[in-house]
Amino acid sequence: MAAAGTPAISRPSGRTPEQLREVRIERGYTRHAEGSVLVSFGDTRVLCTASVDNKVPAFLRGKGEGWVTAEYGMLPRSTNTRNDREAARGKQGGRTLEIQRLIGRALRACVDRKLLGERTITLDCDVLQADGGTRTAAITGAYVALVDAVRWLQARKEISRDPIFGAVAAVSVGIYRGVPVLDLDYAEDSDCDTDMNVVMNDGGGFIELQGTAEGHAFRRDELDALTGLAEAGIAELIAKQREALAR
Amino acid sequence: MAAAGTPAISRPSGRTPEQLREVRIERGYTRHAEGSVLVSFGDTRVLCTASVDNKVPAFLRGKGEGWVTAEYGMLPRSTNTRNDREAARGKQGGRTLEIQRLIGRALRACVDRKLLGERTITLDCDVLQADGGTRTAAITGAYVALVDAVRWLQARKEISRDPIFGAVAAVSVGIYRGVPVLDLDYAEDSDCDTDMNVVMNDGGGFIELQGTAEGHAFRRDELDALTGLAEAGIAELIAKQREALAR
Amino acid sequence: MAAAGTPAISRPSGRTPEQLREVRIERGYTRHAEGSVLVSFGDTRVLCTASVDNKVPAFLRGKGEGWVTAEYGMLPRSTNTRNDREAARGKQGGRTLEIQRLIGRALRACVDRKLLGERTITLDCDVLQADGGTRTAAITGAYVALVDAVRWLQARKEISRDPIFGAVAAVSVGIYRGVPVLDLDYAEDSDCDTDMNVVMNDGGGFIELQGTAEGHAFRRDELDALTGLAEAGIAELIAKQREALAR
Amino acid sequence: MAAAGTPAISRPSGRTPEQLREVRIERGYTRHAEGSVLVSFGDTRVLCTASVDNKVPAFLRGKGEGWVTAEYGMLPRSTNTRNDREAARGKQGGRTLEIQRLIGRALRACVDRKLLGERTITLDCDVLQADGGTRTAAITGAYVALVDAVRWLQARKEISRDPIFGAVAAVSVGIYRGVPVLDLDYAEDSDCDTDMNVVMNDGGGFIELQGTAEGHAFRRDELDALTGLAEAGIAELIAKQREALAR
Amino acid sequence: MAAAGTPAISRPSGRTPEQLREVRIERGYTRHAEGSVLVSFGDTRVLCTASVDNKVPAFLRGKGEGWVTAEYGMLPRSTNTRNDREAARGKQGGRTLEIQRLIGRALRACVDRKLLGERTITLDCDVLQADGGTRTAAITGAYVALVDAVRWLQARKEISRDPIFGAVAAVSVGIYRGVPVLDLDYAEDSDCDTDMNVVMNDGGGFIELQGTAEGHAFRRDELDALTGLAEAGIAELIAKQREALAR
Amino acid sequence: MAAAGTPAISRPSGRTPEQLREVRIERGYTRHAEGSVLVSFGDTRVLCTASVDNKVPAFLRGKGEGWVTAEYGMLPRSTNTRNDREAARGKQGGRTLEIQRLIGRALRACVDRKLLGERTITLDCDVLQADGGTRTAAITGAYVALVDAVRWLQARKEISRDPIFGAVAAVSVGIYRGVPVLDLDYAEDSDCDTDMNVVMNDGGGFIELQGTAEGHAFRRDELDALTGLAEAGIAELIAKQREALAR
Repeated sequence: MAAAGTPAISRPSGRTPEQLREVRIERGYTRHAEGSVLVSFGDTRVLCTASVDNKVPAFLRGKGEGWVTAEYGMLPRSTNTRNDREAARGKQGGRTLEIQRLIGRALRACVDRKLLGERTITLDCDVLQADGGTRTAAITGAYVALVDAVRWLQARKEISRDPIFGAVAAVSVGIYRGVPVLDLDYAEDSDCDTDMNVVMNDGGGFIELQGTAEGHAFRRDELDALTGLAEAGIAELIAKQREALAR
Repeated sequence: MAAAGTPAISRPSGRTPEQLREVRIERGYTRHAEGSVLVSFGDTRVLCTASVDNKVPAFLRGKGEGWVTAEYGMLPRSTNTRNDREAARGKQGGRTLEIQRLIGRALRACVDRKLLGERTITLDCDVLQADGGTRTAAITGAYVALVDAVRWLQARKEISRDPIFGAVAAVSVGIYRGVPVLDLDYAEDSDCDTDMNVVMNDGGGFIELQGTAEGHAFRRDELDALTGLAEAGIAELIAKQREALAR
Repeated sequence: MAAAGTPAISRPSGRTPEQLREVRIERGYTRHAEGSVLVSFGDTRVLCTASVDNKVPAFLRGKGEGWVTAEYGMLPRSTNTRNDREAARGKQGGRTLEIQRLIGRALRACVDRKLLGERTITLDCDVLQADGGTRTAAITGAYVALVDAVRWLQARKEISRDPIFGAVAAVSVGIYRGVPVLDLDYAEDSDCDTDMNVVMNDGGGFIELQGTAEGHAFRRDELDALTGLAEAGIAELIAKQREALAR
Repeated sequence: MAAAGTPAISRPSGRTPEQLREVRIERGYTRHAEGSVLVSFGDTRVLCTASVDNKVPAFLRGKGEGWVTAEYGMLPRSTNTRNDREAARGKQGGRTLEIQRLIGRALRACVDRKLLGERTITLDCDVLQADGGTRTAAITGAYVALVDAVRWLQARKEISRDPIFGAVAAVSVGIYRGVPVLDLDYAEDSDCDTDMNVVMNDGGGFIELQGTAEGHAFRRDELDALTGLAEAGIAELIAKQREALAR
Repeated sequence: MAAAGTPAISRPSGRTPEQLREVRIERGYTRHAEGSVLVSFGDTRVLCTASVDNKVPAFLRGKGEGWVTAEYGMLPRSTNTRNDREAARGKQGGRTLEIQRLIGRALRACVDRKLLGERTITLDCDVLQADGGTRTAAITGAYVALVDAVRWLQARKEISRDPIFGAVAAVSVGIYRGVPVLDLDYAEDSDCDTDMNVVMNDGGGFIELQGTAEGHAFRRDELDALTGLAEAGIAELIAKQREALAR
Repeated sequence: MAAAGTPAISRPSGRTPEQLREVRIERGYTRHAEGSVLVSFGDTRVLCTASVDNKVPAFLRGKGEGWVTAEYGMLPRSTNTRNDREAARGKQGGRTLEIQRLIGRALRACVDRKLLGERTITLDCDVLQADGGTRTAAITGAYVALVDAVRWLQARKEISRDPIFGAVAAVSVGIYRGVPVLDLDYAEDSDCDTDMNVVMNDGGGFIELQGTAEGHAFRRDELDALTGLAEAGIAELIAKQREALAR
């Protein structure tokens, strides 16, 4: 463990460097969507719904393949100070578009779109309360909502073979006051040198890796420590997903 | 009671004509906002947050008065079939604008804006799950969030005298299969002849009254029966608000 | 009459409480539209055109039904001070959308859309000069333009049976300095306690009723007085429509 | 005259090649604007209002100069078939922007902006009915509205010296079936080879000249014939403006 | 020559009144487009690409005709001070729309759209560096790109007969310090009395003529001098186009 | 070298796995901007200009710090098939926003914003021709334009100490047909399993690292091979930047 033997680390939450926040995954949070999950990473709460539509975007029409896409939003007062409502401003900001593109790519990485058939599953990830790590919570929760939507399709015999292979989850890691830590909350995120979001599957493969040096540039050994932390964290998250899906 | 002696009425929910759905008002639902209320009218669930800002819109600057305003949104899959996200479409629809204007007017009706001082309180009403009556639930919940935000201001000694006078709540009424009924759920709303949204204060005065004949035009006696039902329903809702605020 | 025995009332225009402004309805005001009416309620002047299109919106395609819809606009200098042009600002404001939705609902209430067949009639209501009551004048004038467009369709044998049943008109009522008055002009509108827009048909049924307490909340007896005034006013307006259509 | 000796010319309206349509200029058409003119060139009717504002755009602030600008719009059914409302589409089209820029430039050509002082006069030109030549009618009418707005400023002693020098008017000319003609109506405009809009002042100087070959390119002698026709037509229009302003 | 015998003229660039700037036309400037030309008029550099698409706009579908259209843009720092990026502002300005409409009309004037068949050629004219006359350079360069795209179609045997007849080029002329001059650069353009853009074909016919008096109105004899200068300049430009196309 | 001993690799371009494309950096490409660089990575050509403005965004006003930001665009036909112009569509797409946010972050990582003072440097990166790797070319070129803009400020004595520390460059790496390769061109990019963009400084530190599994997820050893390739490639690019800046 990269942080092994670092006695002096003191995270604002009192967690150890390799400790996730409390993770909760509630299925069936709302009743209309084919999949509806409230995921919490500590105080970060994201409602993820999966909606099935028997259409595909124009670029896929007639190809016998499905599509999985995502949209992301933050309620105006999910944050410490109120943000303008994107619907009122008339456009989604760059951060929003970047995150929803990431969520969509992450989930498509575990779907056989031929097996899904000509239908679209849209994952709406709406942040009810933000405390850092909203995108990683969104991916982790949206995976569960996606599985529920696929089960719904299977229950109705609309598809026979399961188009989902493996599992996908995400977590952030970063270097906080010199120490690599797992699952940054807002207090850490706004005061860290390097911030990295990692998406992995249950085979230990990387799907996305986005690291940014906020302060000084990070070195190869730091990258190694961070990916190591992420691997362990994602394994825990995937266990939580399994547990939730088994209920 | 207008519906007295109507034995044959059968509401989809099994309620009597003058019966509200189960109403729940949870304060402190999220932690960042100065007021944060999850209000439920049966399966309709709206998150209402109140945000305090020490600025006023341009038209009020320097006048020593505050402002109370509202924004409304539905999560894309709060409804039976998914609606496009307004932020993605790039504009708020007419229905959204109409509802948020209504919520704002309703709440300004119980605020002395001179006593509020030069600050704005924004009520964000976001529908997590819709089953009819989202605007009336929003008004009823936003009132509680507004009171909490004002208490927060008082606790910090930013204002001394309470700018809120009385209470405001709202309910829908309608003529369903010939019988006036209170608090329409979606099944009734989509199959009724007349639909009316009523906003009243705790003195029994009308603040807003918006009636629409969906099928045949309504008569004077029907209007009387509907406003009678609304009066009784709103008295109950105001009692629920008091109870929640006393906790 | 609600205002009976109120000797002290003094309206800015010198009208009695139950008196409409001078109403004029000129058909054929412009030459391209299938129906084109300039309606005046005193100094309020609205040009209402009805345009027939042999298409329906997507949600009605193939259902054998027609559609009636409305758009509303104010010329930038129809008002006392110039308003920004909505086309230049890049969006229609909430008030505009609210009014055009109201006009559309009001007129659909007197049309059998099956008999209209798969075509759309669009009512464009453009305010040339505003002095209060633009939406009620628009509804009253648009009804006449709609009838003219239907007559045009009948003359060309495109439809055989008249899809319009009854007549629809609208008027505002309000409580001005304590007295219920009919058909508020701008001077009254900007200084009244309660303002209500009422849409009725020629059978005395209510189609829309939208009342707003601007100052103190209104009581049940005030509501009764206001709807009484509106009933009488609308009867007069429907007589004016008939007269215009008989020319 | 260019068209002299062309016996066979037959304009759809029966006019001679050098004949304007009937021109009417009604001042005081609406009551709120500082200048308000309904101008008609035959069936083309444009409402031109002049609005005075005691502010200038940012690029002129503090320079002691005024600004004159224009906006242009067509009512959706001013034309033979209904056009989408630009406010509803969310933007002004290229043709609209081009025309309003032209109107603004044309009128600034007769205004001493130093004498106007730090205020803006906005000319709104809204087409109530279109039959070709809306931009030239708009310029011709807007000039009269502008003079009225300046007279209003002078009457209130806000400016002492008249900032307007000379007069400005506009007309279209074109080659219709081989013959140069003045003031094209819609039937001619949609079937002509060359179309030219000419703006001139009362000293016979050109302010704008915009010629477009719709069919074959035009030759130097045709250009001469067209500008000759325009000169004569504009002299007539300026006489009409004077007459209207003398009433 | 209009400027003959004007000894005192001193253009900032040292050119004689009837002298073009150095004109360069580089074909094949980028490799993806069917036609790609970098045109320079002195320091003004515009990249013109021609893109072939086997579709036509909706209004032409099924008519057996093609379409030629243009888009224009300036890189944000093609100018002396940085302009906002139109994509970031969310709309193209009026000047941009006006110019791209002009380029499209100019090029359609030399294309037989029946012979082109149901395909669209889009000319993108992007200004890399601006020093006056960007629209005239764009037209002159876009013509060459258009020819290359047509040759590409012919080489692939998609069309048999050449749909382009003649050549089209454009130049600006203006009255600078009292003297008519050809091909204004930015220093002249921002300090001249009259500015005129002229588009002509190789038969000496006018396709577009847009003259604007910036300072005093221009007289008939000035118009003659300017069109004379333009004729000579465009003949030179067309020779340059031929030369480039012969390489 | 990660690819050592992989005899069978055959890149479409014939390059070895660890070989960059030909890189060219031309300073002073256009003349108005304070820095103007045309950077080529093979057939990818990006024009990067740096514009200095003596203002900062609102959130920095009065803090004595400067700002460095970037905008990115592709000319419509810089690509194999024409893309819609973002200015015409009315918004920048998610990919564009994501890239320009990345460029801005990358360059801010080598600027001491206190030393820059209250001014903004905007890097406009416009793709003239695309063949893969436009964002990495843009970062590499924009760094040089930024240095030129800072030198310009120093030459004018507007700043005394150099606010730029170190150098920043970027390159893409990916796994193409099983082999890690450096600097993907379009043919490789559209057919690779993993694509990673890496931004580093001249001290060998990572500034950004964005890896995406397009096909199968990538393993830890592949990540190591890719970052190793990137380190070597960026060292070469930084040498090229130095060389260009020394000219």
